[in-house]
Amino acid sequence: MAVLDTKSAAPPALEAGISAARLSLNTATVREQWNLKECVEGCLRHGLGGIAPWRDKIHEAGLEEAARMIRGNELRVSGLCRGGWYTAEGALTDAVIDDNKRAIDEAVAIGAECLVMVVGGLPEGSKDIVGARGIVTEGLAKTLDYARTVDMPIAIEPLHPMYAADRACVNTLGQALDICDQLGPGIGAAVDVYHVWWDPDLLPQLRRAGQERILAFHICDWLVPTRDLLTDRGMMGDGVIDLRGLRAAVEAESFTGLNEVEIFSELNWWKRDPDEVLQTLIERGRTCC
Amino acid sequence: MAVLDTKSAAPPALEAGISAARLSLNTATVREQWNLKECVEGCLRHGLGGIAPWRDKIHEAGLEEAARMIRGNELRVSGLCRGGWYTAEGALTDAVIDDNKRAIDEAVAIGAECLVMVVGGLPEGSKDIVGARGIVTEGLAKTLDYARTVDMPIAIEPLHPMYAADRACVNTLGQALDICDQLGPGIGAAVDVYHVWWDPDLLPQLRRAGQERILAFHICDWLVPTRDLLTDRGMMGDGVIDLRGLRAAVEAESFTGLNEVEIFSELNWWKRDPDEVLQTLIERGRTCC
Repeated sequence: MAVLDTKSAAPPALEAGISAARLSLNTATVREQWNLKECVEGCLRHGLGGIAPWRDKIHEAGLEEAARMIRGNELRVSGLCRGGWYTAEGALTDAVIDDNKRAIDEAVAIGAECLVMVVGGLPEGSKDIVGARGIVTEGLAKTLDYARTVDMPIAIEPLHPMYAADRACVNTLGQALDICDQLGPGIGAAVDVYHVWWDPDLLPQLRRAGQERILAFHICDWLVPTRDLLTDRGMMGDGVIDLRGLRAAVEAESFTGLNEVEIFSELNWWKRDPDEVLQTLIERGRTCC
Repeated sequence: MAVLDTKSAAPPALEAGISAARLSLNTATVREQWNLKECVEGCLRHGLGGIAPWRDKIHEAGLEEAARMIRGNELRVSGLCRGGWYTAEGALTDAVIDDNKRAIDEAVAIGAECLVMVVGGLPEGSKDIVGARGIVTEGLAKTLDYARTVDMPIAIEPLHPMYAADRACVNTLGQALDICDQLGPGIGAAVDVYHVWWDPDLLPQLRRAGQERILAFHICDWLVPTRDLLTDRGMMGDGVIDLRGLRAAVEAESFTGLNEVEIFSELNWWKRDPDEVLQTLIERGRTCC
């Protein structure tokens, strides 16, 4: 194997490695093992700087109790996952908008720094992705009207193109930023390395996004081979993503949010002792990010 | 489920349905069942207009015999699959370039309308996708130098981003066209709906490509759910791709090549009687494309 003599276009990393205090635990990473209370206690025990709960964990605990648990300590809340799914019923419905308003209220209640949006894919039976994107933009506009009244930033998460049909028809950072430009202030993007690492236009789009539009930064890794489209994400360092380069690019825009670890891993990390998972992600944050 | 009232940005299809004479069989579609001779005979028996062999089928038959079989009838050869893999040994090597020259010679021998390029992913152990793309462009430039001497068009096939790590680091039509612009005449793109259907920038990029750069058009469908990243592609009509809209967009650029059917389907079509596969794809060409 010849040694490569190539140059990355990413700016140099400011400082190698992330401390535990700069990491946030997305609860999906241990969703099979821990409830919300165990996640909060785990974050505190391991010295993580923040948490990012999914709504199912919030609902399971009850919103009031969840808010009490999360706010009664020094943890930052890097985001609430997730609003969106605007295409769930085909054309946009009041039920879908109302659910997004509830998600905003929950994000406010737990002190989240943003509400992360997985916007939805094609409506059932549809082949009209252009139409689906129209529904999504309309839904985001209505959600944003409400979010602005309570100062909750909305973070569109562009999902990997392999999810365009069934999860999210916003599939690049550039596309998310076009929607942001159309809708104005109060909305930005959640940049998850798993979804965007491949994009030849990523670095220019991160510069375009800037501090105003980069609302969250999610990390994990892309495994080779990837055995499942949804639940075979890797721990940082186990795959091929240039995590340090991407973190440097985000920090070059003065992003000051946490590095949120979100790993869907049916085949590996969801089967392990969650304390081992947290120890590992802290070590990998230090050595691989 | 509410009825959608949305408009597609795709131009209207000129004429609904493709006749068998406008279809080409990519041999990957029946690769588990038929050798090259059986593929050629099958195409003739079912009245298909063309064939697109993979190199393994050519090598198995022997190049001279393969050329004799393919050229001794009225079949068009919509492409030879495939050259590329420039990153196979890390930095570009003579061995890789020589193999691409042999692929060009084979394409000429069988009268192919283009040589399809799957350019290669990240070199083993590398996380430098920008560097990989540099290797690929260098390799394409060298291949093109030779291809021009024998008038063989080179068709870069942008692969779906889920293959960026291990198969091809050219992942959008726009990216492929940027390379074409850099390298000049004699090179274009193979547009496979499976790889590009999700791209929000697809229609403008097809217009940018125009007749000069659209060298091949591959069809199949995206299944929901997709159970395997590589071998769960769908028969036309079984998935969510707007095949008629995309064909119309390609034909609007005066593309006159065949509609090449390439379906990797471990779980379904590779297990069926290949005559049934051909009957089905002809029927779906008529009703779904």
